[in-house]
Amino acid sequence: MSAIARVQRDDVSGEIGGLPSPYLLFLGDTVEAGYAKTAFGLRDWVGERCVGEFVLPGARVSTGLPALAPAQAAAMGARGLVIGVANAGGIIPPAWIAGLVEALEAGLDIISGLHARLSDIPELKAAAERTGRRLIDIRTPPPGIPVGSGKPRSGRRILTVGTDCALGKKYAALAITRGLKARGLDVDFRATGQTGIMIAGAGLPIDAVVSDFVAGAAEMLSPAAAPSHIDVIEGQGSLLHPAYGAVSVGLLQGSQPDAFVVCHEPGRTEILGHAGHAIPSIEAVISATIALGRVTSPHIRCAGISLNTGKLSPEAALAEIEATAARLGLPTADPLRGGPAFERLLDACLA
Amino acid sequence: MSAIARVQRDDVSGEIGGLPSPYLLFLGDTVEAGYAKTAFGLRDWVGERCVGEFVLPGARVSTGLPALAPAQAAAMGARGLVIGVANAGGIIPPAWIAGLVEALEAGLDIISGLHARLSDIPELKAAAERTGRRLIDIRTPPPGIPVGSGKPRSGRRILTVGTDCALGKKYAALAITRGLKARGLDVDFRATGQTGIMIAGAGLPIDAVVSDFVAGAAEMLSPAAAPSHIDVIEGQGSLLHPAYGAVSVGLLQGSQPDAFVVCHEPGRTEILGHAGHAIPSIEAVISATIALGRVTSPHIRCAGISLNTGKLSPEAALAEIEATAARLGLPTADPLRGGPAFERLLDACLA
Repeated sequence: MSAIARVQRDDVSGEIGGLPSPYLLFLGDTVEAGYAKTAFGLRDWVGERCVGEFVLPGARVSTGLPALAPAQAAAMGARGLVIGVANAGGIIPPAWIAGLVEALEAGLDIISGLHARLSDIPELKAAAERTGRRLIDIRTPPPGIPVGSGKPRSGRRILTVGTDCALGKKYAALAITRGLKARGLDVDFRATGQTGIMIAGAGLPIDAVVSDFVAGAAEMLSPAAAPSHIDVIEGQGSLLHPAYGAVSVGLLQGSQPDAFVVCHEPGRTEILGHAGHAIPSIEAVISATIALGRVTSPHIRCAGISLNTGKLSPEAALAEIEATAARLGLPTADPLRGGPAFERLLDACLA
Repeated sequence: MSAIARVQRDDVSGEIGGLPSPYLLFLGDTVEAGYAKTAFGLRDWVGERCVGEFVLPGARVSTGLPALAPAQAAAMGARGLVIGVANAGGIIPPAWIAGLVEALEAGLDIISGLHARLSDIPELKAAAERTGRRLIDIRTPPPGIPVGSGKPRSGRRILTVGTDCALGKKYAALAITRGLKARGLDVDFRATGQTGIMIAGAGLPIDAVVSDFVAGAAEMLSPAAAPSHIDVIEGQGSLLHPAYGAVSVGLLQGSQPDAFVVCHEPGRTEILGHAGHAIPSIEAVISATIALGRVTSPHIRCAGISLNTGKLSPEAALAEIEATAARLGLPTADPLRGGPAFERLLDACLA
C-alpha cells in the first residue's frame, strides 16, 4: 500500500482494517439516480459489505437493496452509514440531519465523501459526542501535496476521461483493472473520488485539492513504478464541463497517462445538472485530451471508448458499440457487458 | 466595489482604507527575477506607495528602489512589509524568517500572498503577538464559493491567457483596463493573484480555491453586469503548463470571456522552473483556449497578442511585434510600449 493509501486509511478510520463496515447506504431525499453514484458503486463493487439502504420521504432513487431503518441495519450487523449521494456542491441539506442523527443514535458511524464536513454541522457534532460515534470525512486530501513537476516517470498509466460526470469513468477504470489483473498483470486501481476511495480503501480526493496543487496530487497518486507496472486512474469530471474542467485538466496533466479511455453514455444529450449545455462529442473530448495531455505525456493516445449502455437492451447496446467503433475507428466496449469487444479494448490499453 | 472586493478588503485589513501602506518590498534571497513579480508589479503600478526594498544576502534581484533595513523604512513612513516574491509552491523558507521578525520588531505589518500562511510559522506568530503587529494573508478565498453554473451572463469580459506563468498577463490586463478607461468606457480590472489584489485592493486568489470550485469562483469574480460594462480579467498560469493547467481552465470556463488576449515573451524557450518543458506555441494556446473556452462562451475569439518585449531593444521589439502580427494575422502589441499597435489591440478587444 502506498504512502497515500496509508495516510488516507489512518486519517479516515484510525484502524488498520479500513472503514467501518458493513455499510448502510444513505440515499437522503434524492430524486435523480445520477447523484447516487456512491451508493450504486458500493452495491456493485463491494455489495458483500452493504446490508441495505436508508431513504427519506420524497426520495425516488433505490439501489434495490432492502430498505432499513438505522436500528434495523445495526441489528443486522451494520457498523457504518455511508452517505451514498453527492449533490452539486457536496453539501449536507437540513432535510438529512434528523436521519443522520438517528443513525448515530442507532450505533452507526457516519462516513461521508462530500465537500461539506460532517463535524461542521452542530447537530451532528453534538450527537456524535453524545453517542460516542465517529464522523468520518474521507474527502480530506493528505498534507504536503507539492505543485506538479511534470517530470517524466517510469511505469505505465491509463486514465479514464469522459464527456460528462457520472457516466462510468470509475466503473470503466475498475473493470479495466479487473480485466488486466485477470491477464496476470501487475495493476493498481487509483481512486480519485469518494466512492472509489470507499471501494479501494485508498486514494486521493482530487477535487478537494486546491487548484494550484491538483497536478501535483495526481503525481503523488500514481508515482513512478516498475516499467511493467500499470496504474489505472479513475477520471473525474470532463475537460469540456462548465464547472469541473479544472479538476479534469489537473488530473490529466499530473497523471501523465500513456493512454486514455473516453467514457460516454449514449443518449445523454445535456450535461447532468447543467440544462442547456450539450454533451460534447467524443471526438471533441479526444482532441482536447490529447492537446492538453501531451504537455506531460508527449505520446499520449486514445486507447478506445467505454460506453455506458446500462439503459439499453443488449441488441441496442451492441448496435451502439459497433456504430461508435466504426465511426471513430477505435476499440469500443461496455466494460460491464464484457465480451470480445472489451478484450479488444484491453488489448488497445496495452498496445 | 463588488461584494468580493468588500469581503477581501474587510478580511484583509480590518480597515476601510485597504492594506497598510506605504510598503517596504521584501525580496528575500531570490536569484531569479521571474519569481519577483509581486515586487515589480507594485513598483510599476503603485510605485507611489513603495518606499524601498529589503533584500537578504545572496539575492540577485532588485526593483531599483532604495535598499532599506526595516527600521529605516519605518522611519520613512512605511507601515507594511510586502513579501514581493513567490517561489514555486508559495512557501516561506527558513532563511527568510529572521528578516521578517526584524520587520515586525521595526513596527511593520507583514502582507503575504503566498500559499503558506504567515501565522502557521511559530516564530512569526510569536513575534507578531510580542510586537502587536499583524500578519496579513491575502491568499484566502472568500467563503461560500459555489460550483460553476455555466449560465450565460450579461456584460462583456476579456481574459488574458498565456504561454507560461510570469510573462505579462497581469500587466496586459492592467494596461488594457487603463487603455479602455482612457476611451471613456466602463471597465473593471478583476484581480486573480496576490499582486493584482494588492494593486487593485480587491479580487479573488483563484489558485487558492479548491479545484471543484474554481469555475464558480471565476463566476463570482466577474458577475453579470450592464451590457456595456467590461471586465478585464487577470489570467493565471497556462492551459499548457505542466503544473497549473487546472487553474487556467477553471478561470477560463468560469470567466466566460467574449475575447481573450494571448500573452507571450519572445525568446523564452522553456517553462519557467520546469526545465525540459518547451514553451508552447501561441497558435497552440489559441487553439486550446477556444476548444475549452467555448464550453461556456460559444463565440469566444482571440482578440490579439500581447508580447512582453522588456528584454528587447525598441527596434527588435518592433520587428518581433510586426512578425508575430503577420504570422498570426492578429493585432499584436506590447501594452507597456503602447502606440498605434496597442490601440489596434484595444480596438480588437472591443470588436
